[in-house]
Amino acid sequence: MKRAVCLLSGGLDSATTLAIAKSDQFDCYALSFRYGQRHRREIEAAKKICASIGVARHLIMEIDFSSIGGSALTDDIPVPKGRTESMMKASIPVTYVPARNTVFLSFALAWAETLDAQDIFIGVNALDYSGYPDCRPEYIQAFEKMANLATKKGVEGNVFRIHTPLIEMTKGQIIRKGIELCVDFSLTHSCYDPSPDGLACGMCDSCLIRKKGFEEAGISDPVKTII
Amino acid sequence: MKRAVCLLSGGLDSATTLAIAKSDQFDCYALSFRYGQRHRREIEAAKKICASIGVARHLIMEIDFSSIGGSALTDDIPVPKGRTESMMKASIPVTYVPARNTVFLSFALAWAETLDAQDIFIGVNALDYSGYPDCRPEYIQAFEKMANLATKKGVEGNVFRIHTPLIEMTKGQIIRKGIELCVDFSLTHSCYDPSPDGLACGMCDSCLIRKKGFEEAGISDPVKTII
Repeated sequence: MKRAVCLLSGGLDSATTLAIAKSDQFDCYALSFRYGQRHRREIEAAKKICASIGVARHLIMEIDFSSIGGSALTDDIPVPKGRTESMMKASIPVTYVPARNTVFLSFALAWAETLDAQDIFIGVNALDYSGYPDCRPEYIQAFEKMANLATKKGVEGNVFRIHTPLIEMTKGQIIRKGIELCVDFSLTHSCYDPSPDGLACGMCDSCLIRKKGFEEAGISDPVKTII
Repeated sequence: MKRAVCLLSGGLDSATTLAIAKSDQFDCYALSFRYGQRHRREIEAAKKICASIGVARHLIMEIDFSSIGGSALTDDIPVPKGRTESMMKASIPVTYVPARNTVFLSFALAWAETLDAQDIFIGVNALDYSGYPDCRPEYIQAFEKMANLATKKGVEGNVFRIHTPLIEMTKGQIIRKGIELCVDFSLTHSCYDPSPDGLACGMCDSCLIRKKGFEEAGISDPVKTII
């Protein structure tokens, strides 16, 4: 079996992406980050998803994005609530974490090279998303090109590929794909600003996009929210 | 004054690069990494260099490359000694750390975006070096292109630039440039495999390239080696 590194936040997109990599016959190495995020509860979700789907290894790396700052997810900046879809599409929100996917993909690349893996999976989505620049196809293509110039294996001709199976899907389509692959969405965590006991707020961008997705898919979300 | 993020390992290349950024009138934010390297003594050198040259801030980030492995610098793999120049040029050595500069530049990019800086300095060199793929101009260009697609500021038109002032210089030229800018090379540390009390081994690639550079520059190295 070929190995793949799969970035796994613990949300429903990355859980579905991991299930897709698995159904594509990859031996999956899941990679999560404790980066000072206010919703660090997602790491517990990631662990449960790994146990449920089955991975060769789950590596949780510690990185200190809070010493860099600049985001509502790592700083003392309020998470926006109750935004409409057009508000989300109008500008990049304060929950954007500078260069986060670039840092995550860089570590995934390092680990892939060590594991003799050529395939990296990331659950970015450029349709139903918060407008983050590092979720777009042109960014992913540029990262892949750079990755093959950056590395010993890349230079030797073992081409690294960044797989983004969800990039052109709506949230509803992603949920239906996950259901088809038996992803247990009750294990996933999406909320940016959960209550101290881990309940989803129901009003942040991430909760609202998730809600819209389940409505679109015609399925009831097993994860309950406060509102 | 415009701000710049300057990657600083504590070696003579990054010290000279910091001095160049400073002489180019940038307000310098130095960034170093404790990444599980066997020569972590270089971080102490980086601190002294910052104090000597003068920076706005010196951020030392902790990252765990040893959990990823695959290098003589982070793993229990012997550091090669006594290699000739042609041996160095023949292949990428075991001291290569998978995707290291990509990870370092990614954090530099994140910090630059938070600081409202558009300029990132890195002391890579493609002439007198160990053959690492992530020291070549084509890699740096690809990273820069990716960086401007990855980020909020990049998308908004504030172009990030990766400065590599040493990339086409010989080690001797770098040392002469450093002397011209009053870099105190006695503070720098280059050895991959220092003794427990911090003395340079004199035989690893990094020591040998440094030795050749000082000979070329016609200057005596203030840092002594065991051999």
